[in-house]
Amino acid sequence: MENLGYYNGKFGLLEEMTVPMLDRVCYFGDGVYDATYSRNHKIFALEEHIERFYNSAGLLGIKIPYSKEQVKEILKEMVLKVDSGEQFVYWQITRGTGMRNHAFPGDEVPANLWIMLKPLNIKDMSQKLKLITLEDTRFLHCNIKTLNLLPSVIASQKTEEAGCQEAVFHRGDRVTECAHSNVSIIKDGILKTAPTDNLILPGIARAHLIKMCKSFNIPVDETAFTLKELMEADEVIVTSSGQFCMATSEIDGIPVGGKAPELVKKLQDALLNEFLEETKTE
Amino acid sequence: MENLGYYNGKFGLLEEMTVPMLDRVCYFGDGVYDATYSRNHKIFALEEHIERFYNSAGLLGIKIPYSKEQVKEILKEMVLKVDSGEQFVYWQITRGTGMRNHAFPGDEVPANLWIMLKPLNIKDMSQKLKLITLEDTRFLHCNIKTLNLLPSVIASQKTEEAGCQEAVFHRGDRVTECAHSNVSIIKDGILKTAPTDNLILPGIARAHLIKMCKSFNIPVDETAFTLKELMEADEVIVTSSGQFCMATSEIDGIPVGGKAPELVKKLQDALLNEFLEETKTE
Repeated sequence: MENLGYYNGKFGLLEEMTVPMLDRVCYFGDGVYDATYSRNHKIFALEEHIERFYNSAGLLGIKIPYSKEQVKEILKEMVLKVDSGEQFVYWQITRGTGMRNHAFPGDEVPANLWIMLKPLNIKDMSQKLKLITLEDTRFLHCNIKTLNLLPSVIASQKTEEAGCQEAVFHRGDRVTECAHSNVSIIKDGILKTAPTDNLILPGIARAHLIKMCKSFNIPVDETAFTLKELMEADEVIVTSSGQFCMATSEIDGIPVGGKAPELVKKLQDALLNEFLEETKTE
Repeated sequence: MENLGYYNGKFGLLEEMTVPMLDRVCYFGDGVYDATYSRNHKIFALEEHIERFYNSAGLLGIKIPYSKEQVKEILKEMVLKVDSGEQFVYWQITRGTGMRNHAFPGDEVPANLWIMLKPLNIKDMSQKLKLITLEDTRFLHCNIKTLNLLPSVIASQKTEEAGCQEAVFHRGDRVTECAHSNVSIIKDGILKTAPTDNLILPGIARAHLIKMCKSFNIPVDETAFTLKELMEADEVIVTSSGQFCMATSEIDGIPVGGKAPELVKKLQDALLNEFLEETKTE
C-alpha cells in the first residue's frame, strides 16, 4: 500500500478511512500522539517514542487499552504493509467515543488507537533553514504531545507565507521552541538548549543531539536562552523527528549562524549515521 | 429522530455518523464551533451565535463555504428533523480534509460543516452551583471558540471528581472565566464581569445578562475581578448558553454569595422569559 490509516484494528488507505463522528477528538481535540520515521520497514527510535506516548497519555489521564509491547507490535505490523522507502510513522490515542460531555467518559469507554503512515523523507541536512520569530501564545502544557495544535497551525501558516521553514516561539524575551521542532544554539563550542519544563516538548531528536554532543565532549547547557542569544549564536540548530540537526541561515530576514560549520557537520553526520544504522536491512 | 449528526450535507443518528480520518480536526483540532439551545424547533439567539461563529472562524482564517443565511437555513432545517422539546444545537467548521501538514491547505480545499443535535434541557435556575478554582493554564486565544479544549476537559473532570458543577479559572489573582461558562459577581448592587479580551470567551448569555442588568438600571462594571472579590461577592453568577443566570452556593467548599437573592431571581425570571418568548409556538 502507498499509505495506511488504522483505527482500532481496521485499516486501509488514509483517504478512504473514516472514524466515528463522536470520537472525542472531533469536538475536544481530546488525545495525544507521537511520530517518528521508518526506513526499510524499520521504525527509528521506537522505544523512546512509545515511552513519550505513554507519558503524554498518562499526564492527561488517558488509559491506553494496550501494553507498550502491543502498540509496538501493531506499529511494526502496519509498517510492513506500506511500500518501502522512508515513511512518516504517526499514531495517536483519543479518549473514547460518546456524546459530547467535557468530563471523562467512564472506564468502560475504551480509548481509540489511530495510526497514519505515509511516504516522507527525512530532511536533507545540507539545506539551511530560514526562521521567523513569534510570541508563544500556547497553553502551559507544551510538554504533552496533544492534539490541541491550533497555535502551531497558525504559526506554520505565517511561516509559509514568509517563505520560511519554521517559527521560533518566545515568551517575552525567552525562546521556548519552534512550532513543531525544538531549537538549540551553539555558542563558543557549547550547545545551549532550553530545559524540559512545561513550555517545551521533550524532543527525542533533541535528546539524541544532546547525547551526541556529550559523546563528542561538546558541553551541553540546558538553560533557557533569549532572543538576543539566538540572533548572536554561532549556530542555530532546529531538531525534530525528521530533522536531526538542521542549521539556520536567517531569522526574520537577518543572517544568523554559520560560524561553526564543522561542528554542525560532525553532529549531522553522526546523527544521520545513527538513523541509517538502526534502519538498515540485515 | 432522537438526535442528529450532520457532515457536509449527509445526516443521520449521531452514533452512526462517520467522518473522514483526514479531517484536520482529527489531528490538529483545527476548527471552531458554536452552540445554543432550541425549543419547539426554534433556535434561541441564533443571529448572535452565527455572528460569533463567523468571527471565530475569521480569526483563524477558516473560510466557511456558506453564507450566514445558508448556515442558519441548514440549522433550522436540521432542527426540524429531531423530536421536539429542548435540544442542544451544536455546530462546527473544520479546516478541510487532507494529509497532515501544519500550514493551511489551499483555497481549493473546502472547510467541513458539522452539526450535532441532541435532547438537553436548559438548566433549572432554582439550583445553586458548587465551584472549584483552578489556575488558568490555557492558551491566549480564549476569545476564539476553538476545538482545542483539553484544558477545559481536564478542569471539568477535576470539577466532577470534587462533586462540583464548574471550575473558575484564574491567572494568578485575576479571575478569567469558567471551564465552559463565564463568571460574574454582584457586589453592592453592581454587576462586575471581566472585559472581553483574549482571556475570555465573549459569552452570549453573558451579553444577555449585561443587557438585562442595564434594562433594570443595575450598573455593570466590565473590569476584571480577583479571587478575593469572588469569594466576598454578594452573589457569584455563572452564565452559558444553557445556564442563563446560575447562582453559586460554594467555592472550594467555602460558602459564597446568597446575599442578593431577590436581584438574582429577578434576572433569572427575565432571562428565562426571554428564552421562552423567543421559542414559543405561534
